[in-house]
Amino acid sequence: MQDSFQNLRFVLVNTSQPGNIGGAARAIKNMGFSDLVLVQPEIFPSDRARWRAAGAGDVLKQARVVDSFADAIADCQLVIGTSARERRIPWPLVNPRLCADQVAAEAGDHKIALVFGREDSGLTNEELQRCNLHVHIPTNPDYSSLNLCAAVQVLAYEVRMSLLASTGELKEVEQEWDEPPATSEELENFIQHLEQSMIESGFLDPETPRQTMTRMRRMFSRIRPDQSEVAILRGLLSSFGKKK
Amino acid sequence: MQDSFQNLRFVLVNTSQPGNIGGAARAIKNMGFSDLVLVQPEIFPSDRARWRAAGAGDVLKQARVVDSFADAIADCQLVIGTSARERRIPWPLVNPRLCADQVAAEAGDHKIALVFGREDSGLTNEELQRCNLHVHIPTNPDYSSLNLCAAVQVLAYEVRMSLLASTGELKEVEQEWDEPPATSEELENFIQHLEQSMIESGFLDPETPRQTMTRMRRMFSRIRPDQSEVAILRGLLSSFGKKK
Repeated sequence: MQDSFQNLRFVLVNTSQPGNIGGAARAIKNMGFSDLVLVQPEIFPSDRARWRAAGAGDVLKQARVVDSFADAIADCQLVIGTSARERRIPWPLVNPRLCADQVAAEAGDHKIALVFGREDSGLTNEELQRCNLHVHIPTNPDYSSLNLCAAVQVLAYEVRMSLLASTGELKEVEQEWDEPPATSEELENFIQHLEQSMIESGFLDPETPRQTMTRMRRMFSRIRPDQSEVAILRGLLSSFGKKK
Repeated sequence: MQDSFQNLRFVLVNTSQPGNIGGAARAIKNMGFSDLVLVQPEIFPSDRARWRAAGAGDVLKQARVVDSFADAIADCQLVIGTSARERRIPWPLVNPRLCADQVAAEAGDHKIALVFGREDSGLTNEELQRCNLHVHIPTNPDYSSLNLCAAVQVLAYEVRMSLLASTGELKEVEQEWDEPPATSEELENFIQHLEQSMIESGFLDPETPRQTMTRMRRMFSRIRPDQSEVAILRGLLSSFGKKK
């Protein structure tokens, strides 16, 4: 599993704003990755990048600076380029989720590069044609230009989700509840207690009950209260019912 | 569909860095949303926010500043708080994907708030207890503190993906290929042409063919070449085979 995280490289090509390098380093580390390669960054290293990287200074420090796109991906067995534009000759193009699933499926065995282009113009056609696969983040068509860090963040997050899912570590609902749910009998006893209290207080006329109890039953069924909640509610009903 | 995008509000509580307000506005607009509410931001409006918002200046301009968390969520029917920490009393807690699915399922009819806390300390327990649901982004346990914009970006992206999926607008593979795939017969004719060329050139000995043709057949089956690619390859074989 750790290998899978180490086998994914993030390549930033000709980044012009140093802050974006720092932000990308942070996003990469936040999602559990560490391999960052910079192809001819305009300014690097820099204070601005260090500041934006926050606690990901180690990723920034280990980042490798190379002279060419070819150097950055030379040892990679799957190269994925981020692409915003329509291409004259279509290339295999997937959305981030399918891209992440493919990376997760291969990252245990293969060295993979995710490549991000320039802030203003992305990757060149020549660079994109060095990629096996293109990935496109489906942004708002009215405002599609995603910040470089945002693109790194979204793809790093997607790959992390796929990797966690592939090992069963991804929990949809993180249910470490402190109390067990009430049983059907406990809930029924509570509902009867509630109805009795409503009648005794004069709120509910048993001759014309309408839908009141059905609505209460529906609400508490939906809530699925836990045992401590039922205990609190029943204590409250008892307290209300006491002769003053 | 457009209603669903308009029914999701992003609430930022006590944001201290104005750049984050701008970055959040950009992330929100990139993903097709527009409703931003700021609860007592430290500095707003600001040049820094405008600069970071880039083309999302309209979202920033329309952002509503309110005095309290209660004001920000008053009209919302589902309130989701982002949470990084373990709570003493557990609250229903989902991952971003399940959160996004729930938002997408409800956003057509209900007003929904996604609430983000302070850069350094998140949401208070009191604020979190005003939420119906908590969402947690499963970051690297060794470096879990996500930048505020990054959290907004990830959740806005996830909700966009769920909304696009719910209307069938999300394509896994964006296949607007320019040429139809080759048929089985076209591929077979090419393979035979290739084999013939290999034999004629002396590369392949038909007496001891080994696995060469099987490997070539496997490769071209896997590639699934389109009709123009097969035509180029066959033209090339013919050209190689010409007597000089």
